[in-house]
Order: sequence, then C-alpha cells, then structure tokens
Amino acid sequence: MPSVRVYVRLKPSLLDSAGRTVGEALKNLGYAEVEDVRIGKLIELKVDTVEDSRIREMCSKLLANPVIEDFTYEVVGEKA
Amino acid sequence: MPSVRVYVRLKPSLLDSAGRTVGEALKNLGYAEVEDVRIGKLIELKVDTVEDSRIREMCSKLLANPVIEDFTYEVVGEKA
Repeated sequence: MPSVRVYVRLKPSLLDSAGRTVGEALKNLGYAEVEDVRIGKLIELKVDTVEDSRIREMCSKLLANPVIEDFTYEVVGEKA
Repeated sequence: MPSVRVYVRLKPSLLDSAGRTVGEALKNLGYAEVEDVRIGKLIELKVDTVEDSRIREMCSKLLANPVIEDFTYEVVGEKA
C-alpha cells in the first residue's frame, strides 16, 4: 500500500515561536552551531490509491491551514 | 549553510489519537482511500556545521522523547 508523506511548514514570513524556543534551548544546552529552528508537521497517510489532485485537496482542506502554512508531499512505495 | 531535517514519529506500537481523528475527518470528507494517518513532527535546523553524533544527541535530549518517539534525520545542502 502506498503512503504519502505530507510536510506542513509555517510560512517563512511568520514567526515560529515554538521553533525559536527550541533553538534557544539547544543553544543553552551547548549546541552553539544551531542558527535557526522551525517546527512543522509530518503527516503520513496510508492510502489505497494515490491521485495527486485529491492529495492536494486533502492538504488544503484539512491537513494544512493555507493562510499560515505551506505544504509539500511525496509518495513513498508503489503508486497503485 | 546546511540544514538538518529531523523527523519525529510516535512509536508504531502507540495509538496516535490525533492521527486517528484526522483520518476519520478525511473519510467523512469523502476521501475513502485513506486507510491510516499518523502525525509526527518535522523539525528543521539551520546549523553551521553538521556532526552526526551531535545531531543524534540533540534529538534524544530535546527534540524527541525517546520513550514514546522515534527519530530519523537527513542533511540537506552542503555539509560544511
């Protein structure tokens, strides 16, 4: 069964306060090499069939909020 | 500057109630092809230098909860 990995990210122009907090925590733990952190969502769908237009629809209707988020996706496994 | 994409997923044996809810919502919206949904985190780090042992340390100390989550990561862009 194919699966679809959807990556949902906050739009680059928006402040990611959770990401900033994690970035500061990493610096405080001694990881000075970390310059920036952004936190998004990884949504994995197991689907019977993959139809790109339907995947995009699911993303823009439910999985991502198009006002503040961007999404990309990739199909893993056979495209039955 | 290289970036590191960390994927944090709930361990497969654990019930993902948020994922289940999203899966039911997708079915209710008419996406009957969706069999299962799991929701994880996508954490993108911009770093000066990439050292695998340090990345794994960051993941197990702060980015993922090793009791309930697994993580994988990949390096994107030049490994300075």
